Amino acid sequence: MSIHAVKRSQCHLAWDNSIDPVLRVQSGETVTFDCLDASNGQITRESTVGNISTLVFARLDQVNGPVYVEGAAAGDTLQVDVLSVAPATWGWTACIPGFGLLADEFTEPALKIWSLDTEKGEAYFFEEEKRVRVPLRPFAGEMGVAPGKAGAFSTIPPYATGGNIDTKHLSAGATLFLPVEVEGALFSIGTRAGTAIETPMKVSVRLTVRKDRPYTKTPHFSTPKISENEEYYCTTGVDADMREATRAAVRHMIEFLGAEHGFGRVDAYMLCSVAGDLRLHEVVDMPNYVVGMMIPRSILGPSTKVGCHP
Amino acid sequence: MSIHAVKRSQCHLAWDNSIDPVLRVQSGETVTFDCLDASNGQITRESTVGNISTLVFARLDQVNGPVYVEGAAAGDTLQVDVLSVAPATWGWTACIPGFGLLADEFTEPALKIWSLDTEKGEAYFFEEEKRVRVPLRPFAGEMGVAPGKAGAFSTIPPYATGGNIDTKHLSAGATLFLPVEVEGALFSIGTRAGTAIETPMKVSVRLTVRKDRPYTKTPHFSTPKISENEEYYCTTGVDADMREATRAAVRHMIEFLGAEHGFGRVDAYMLCSVAGDLRLHEVVDMPNYVVGMMIPRSILGPSTKVGCHP
Repeated sequence: MSIHAVKRSQCHLAWDNSIDPVLRVQSGETVTFDCLDASNGQITRESTVGNISTLVFARLDQVNGPVYVEGAAAGDTLQVDVLSVAPATWGWTACIPGFGLLADEFTEPALKIWSLDTEKGEAYFFEEEKRVRVPLRPFAGEMGVAPGKAGAFSTIPPYATGGNIDTKHLSAGATLFLPVEVEGALFSIGTRAGTAIETPMKVSVRLTVRKDRPYTKTPHFSTPKISENEEYYCTTGVDADMREATRAAVRHMIEFLGAEHGFGRVDAYMLCSVAGDLRLHEVVDMPNYVVGMMIPRSILGPSTKVGCHP
Repeated sequence: MSIHAVKRSQCHLAWDNSIDPVLRVQSGETVTFDCLDASNGQITRESTVGNISTLVFARLDQVNGPVYVEGAAAGDTLQVDVLSVAPATWGWTACIPGFGLLADEFTEPALKIWSLDTEKGEAYFFEEEKRVRVPLRPFAGEMGVAPGKAGAFSTIPPYATGGNIDTKHLSAGATLFLPVEVEGALFSIGTRAGTAIETPMKVSVRLTVRKDRPYTKTPHFSTPKISENEEYYCTTGVDADMREATRAAVRHMIEFLGAEHGFGRVDAYMLCSVAGDLRLHEVVDMPNYVVGMMIPRSILGPSTKVGCHP
């Protein structure tokens, strides 16, 4: 299997199906993306809070790509296996005035530079004499494909085609499924997690075209072992109304349970209420929310579809 | 430590501070509640879908209690340590027309009777020839104290004083903190999980008055080890607007991190964005949503408050 690379400089600042691909790959091939942090290099290890006020917003939130995957057509699903996610040895977290869930209550800029110990898998948060250790679980905050609709769409909100879905479960070992809307899918990736610990990182993914998942209308993903040592399958709802996003996430899980596991609609709905977890994956990048419906895979057993791996 | 008991028959159908306590206990004492299922005994192991249409709604969602805890006064916090949760050997899940997140899409009644293997800790979901095993993690869906406001409030929605918060993490080993609004707290408990697997169960809790948590304005809880083998601390927001509930959950975590762990507001806000998980605990019992903000306890270390266990 050949390995392809996308460089730091090969990035773009909007989801737009008219952007030329920087690379063409066969379905099933692996690509490594070298990504700058979400500030597009404007914040460095030496930055101070003063740098927040001079951030050029038009340069933020770049994504690297797009990658054309041969054989992908509108209506297909792009399967993205996250093989590795390697952060740098530093990162940042900021309060950016006007941005965030409590933007009205946190109006002053702030910046925290973290030290990341990638060997131990820990981040250190310094605050006067106190040191807080946070386990590192690096993930790529932004993965998506080009929209079918013409035009340039901001990389800040999440969409049905993915983008800034900010899901910490998309770490190495996870698999993301995205609905393809254009020929070649035009997949891109960014490190933004608006805001977690922002850091430059290298991400390797395997891109595979799937023709057998017509029910993938928003991002779906499966996780490595997380809660209660379980692997989860997650469907999402993406909507400007949080309640509608929640309803869509559940509706998509019912469709998945029917298509892949042979459940009747009512049984699937009941199973969601008994065994499902609802999570708010994305609440800060307006206008869209991402709500996830997660089900432990162990209770589902293997797919009942012939010749299909989930 | 003496053990007190509340019987099945000692239940009430509204949160109302004028209801006489069925029991008085000292702070720190343990009480075992023998609870019927959420249908208040209307659904049994032998029920069929026909029973859904004849449910008497006015009898549903009883809670057992209230228990008067000596020394509790308005402004205090009631600490509820969940010691054990023992379900029966059967349970039910239903689609009740007009109720639920997708009520408009699931308009027909449905009923599923589960077999619960309490030894193995598994539930079996029968559907034609297929058998789905769900791991049992019994929890009490409804725990709360009487509101300060006079009047009878439905036991269906969750409130700032708790009630139907439907959080699966409130299993044995969890600790719930509730803001006390009336003398004696007047604590009650129900098994409702609207709708998970509904079952009669016996629940034992230790009730302790805390004078040192003035920041407990909505339910807070700490969990046993769950996600990634971590214990979590969770603050909640309870609001008729899902976004406002989310904002309140984060705001309450910032207050907690300041009061118990000495974090400045901005640092606490950043830590929420880096290490916090937002979950939708309750989305079906209108008019109120419960959103939880969860932080792994291991990254916080011990409380910095003198003489205080968290």
